[in-house]
Amino acid sequence: MDFKQYITVVEDFPKEGVRFKDITTLMENGEAYKQAIDEMVKYAQNRNIDVVVGPEARGFVVGCPIAYSLEIGFVPVRKAGKLPREVLEVDYGLEYGKDSLNIHKSSIKPGQRVLITDDLLATGGTIEATIKMVEKLGGIVAGIAFMIELSYLDGRDKLDDYDVFSLMEY
Amino acid sequence: MDFKQYITVVEDFPKEGVRFKDITTLMENGEAYKQAIDEMVKYAQNRNIDVVVGPEARGFVVGCPIAYSLEIGFVPVRKAGKLPREVLEVDYGLEYGKDSLNIHKSSIKPGQRVLITDDLLATGGTIEATIKMVEKLGGIVAGIAFMIELSYLDGRDKLDDYDVFSLMEY
Repeated sequence: MDFKQYITVVEDFPKEGVRFKDITTLMENGEAYKQAIDEMVKYAQNRNIDVVVGPEARGFVVGCPIAYSLEIGFVPVRKAGKLPREVLEVDYGLEYGKDSLNIHKSSIKPGQRVLITDDLLATGGTIEATIKMVEKLGGIVAGIAFMIELSYLDGRDKLDDYDVFSLMEY
Repeated sequence: MDFKQYITVVEDFPKEGVRFKDITTLMENGEAYKQAIDEMVKYAQNRNIDVVVGPEARGFVVGCPIAYSLEIGFVPVRKAGKLPREVLEVDYGLEYGKDSLNIHKSSIKPGQRVLITDDLLATGGTIEATIKMVEKLGGIVAGIAFMIELSYLDGRDKLDDYDVFSLMEY
């Protein structure tokens, strides 16, 4: 399936000059969404995954059905203040200033093989922070899967030590 | 399966006096998460659903695997500024002040049978706003499914005209 035909490129969102890759038109199409997730599940099946981790909110859109299909757990990474139990917090750089991401400390068991998922790999900042959290908790990042990779932003350079899969490249 | 055993009740979150129902411990357990979603899928299968709609971010955790399992589309409801194409905006009351939710106008086709999903029914404000959006776009709210219902908050009173399913009640 040519998944790109279901992606809408929106000019100048969220700001001038950006060509935003909108996955919602893919998600709205039941067949395209199912097949896209199944391709990512196929990648994960070869990597012996124990648990899926994804940052909010679009990481959930990808990671939750993958976890469901694999019959394994899903662990959310969220903005500060959203997770109710004891969290590990990691700062990550944004274009202006910084922000922080949280994960429940008890959610990853040492030695667990983790699949990290997100909708899109851009500069890789969010994923770098997510990797740091998983590893601090003793997890093994056994794979990283994106729906879309913006290869001209070189985010993959930050992920050199990891196995990375992307369904579509721009 | 007794799903409640996988829910963590966290005292005084996000503020004093609230007994927060944390679904992340259910989601982390692959078998419990799978079975919980499957129960909700079973409900949806009887209602002839065309598309699933859910508000960010926890509505995605429930709705995305349901849509995947049913092989139908998922339409996200998001906070203002997150969706790149033309949106319908609806205000909804919060405890202090108000906020607004957005949905892409083109995402619901007139006459489509919609399942609305969220993790939790509390006072029902978010779901009321979501119903309003779906109906303004010509969709038929054919069912509403929650993982958890806080029945002492009487959110169901707002949903009298609809068919409502919840997996767990507190």
